[in-house]
Amino acid sequence: MLSVIILGSGNVAQHLIKAFSAAADVNLVKAYARHPEKLSHLLPPEKITNVISNLADADVYIISVSDDAIAAVSAELQFKGKLVVHTSGSTPLEILDNKNRRGVFYPLQTFSAAKAIDFSTVPLCLESEFSQDLQTLHTLAQAISKSFYHIDSKQRQALHVAAVFVSNFVNHMYVLGSEVCAQNNIPFDILKPLIKEVADKATSLPPLQAQTGPALRGDEKTISRHLDFLQDEKLKEIYTLLTYSIQQTHEQKL
Amino acid sequence: MLSVIILGSGNVAQHLIKAFSAAADVNLVKAYARHPEKLSHLLPPEKITNVISNLADADVYIISVSDDAIAAVSAELQFKGKLVVHTSGSTPLEILDNKNRRGVFYPLQTFSAAKAIDFSTVPLCLESEFSQDLQTLHTLAQAISKSFYHIDSKQRQALHVAAVFVSNFVNHMYVLGSEVCAQNNIPFDILKPLIKEVADKATSLPPLQAQTGPALRGDEKTISRHLDFLQDEKLKEIYTLLTYSIQQTHEQKL
Repeated sequence: MLSVIILGSGNVAQHLIKAFSAAADVNLVKAYARHPEKLSHLLPPEKITNVISNLADADVYIISVSDDAIAAVSAELQFKGKLVVHTSGSTPLEILDNKNRRGVFYPLQTFSAAKAIDFSTVPLCLESEFSQDLQTLHTLAQAISKSFYHIDSKQRQALHVAAVFVSNFVNHMYVLGSEVCAQNNIPFDILKPLIKEVADKATSLPPLQAQTGPALRGDEKTISRHLDFLQDEKLKEIYTLLTYSIQQTHEQKL
Repeated sequence: MLSVIILGSGNVAQHLIKAFSAAADVNLVKAYARHPEKLSHLLPPEKITNVISNLADADVYIISVSDDAIAAVSAELQFKGKLVVHTSGSTPLEILDNKNRRGVFYPLQTFSAAKAIDFSTVPLCLESEFSQDLQTLHTLAQAISKSFYHIDSKQRQALHVAAVFVSNFVNHMYVLGSEVCAQNNIPFDILKPLIKEVADKATSLPPLQAQTGPALRGDEKTISRHLDFLQDEKLKEIYTLLTYSIQQTHEQKL
């Protein structure tokens, strides 16, 4: 059985603590948090510490703190030659102090405190400095998820950029749509089946094939009616740029 | 029982034909199509006609053709004073010939030939020139869906614009994300649980609250790393504009 220590108390750390606590094949030895009370709803007091200099032995140490703090936390560790990983999508493996064997254990999902996640569906992106450690990370990943990938730092950066497009930017499109609704006394609920169907389609059809709408059809009449309707200059600019981008993307593929 | 005649053979017309054929309380009298063979997999030959001058009597005539053809088809109808509706999100009620009582029966969903839709979840946006016809459209909507709204032409235009944001533009974000993946030998599958979760969140949380990511956090280090990573000028421009828009939107709400 693999033993694990988690360092951190944010959303990702908390979701990992829950997942490892529920896993049959993992021994979650301890969690480190500067403010132990942040984890007290998840673990008994004896499993939480705020003293980083005195961590027990474990097979894997998972640093799940904000990107800017990873380097400092890894440097504070008082041991050498052990497997230490971070969970960040946008941070290279090399940010970790090289006194330990370095790796990455990046769960590609959006985590919020308010919403439970079925961790078994979360893709885990694994990377290790030394090839023998990859097997350990595979075993650890399999204990909590059905889905894991070997992704190197260059790929992970690409993946993080792609995730910003399909997640943060997509959510912003929902925000802009909900504002247009609010300004016209339309319940946003009316758009929810459409939102769901578009996401469903993307999981069963290549997105390029799933594209619909006035931009794709080259329906200039509707496009100019929409631009007339949008009073806000920023919305006009976004509408124009994305319409152009849809048309350009699809022309390139013909 | 309401009797209905559908004019058109595109995706929306076909989905409506399926839904009305399965509805207990609607009599689908006939469908008109210039090319009857397009509907032959849905209806028996005696229920399809390509002669518009000789349509039977019905309570509601539903014109479900391309936006540009609605006016012409409604003008070709040989009767007067009957309830005639179109199914377009972006076309005003007034486009219909005023010899008949005009209305709109707009299903707000993305339809493709390849993917079945549970019509009972599709929101129907109803509008009528004369108030007494609204009840007829309600009854018709209820026969095929659990969800219908009274939406006037101004609101419908807003809704169509909002739908472009949450549907066409969202799908384009999926396209751009999938291209970044393809260029870096990353399977797009890895992003699908994230896509699903972001859409799920939008249906349970106001999108403004669900926003996450480097733009929202003001994480300039990650933003500039992402911009360095993106070589394509169009992608850089989209990333920059949407990052700015996220920040501006959230500042306004504070």
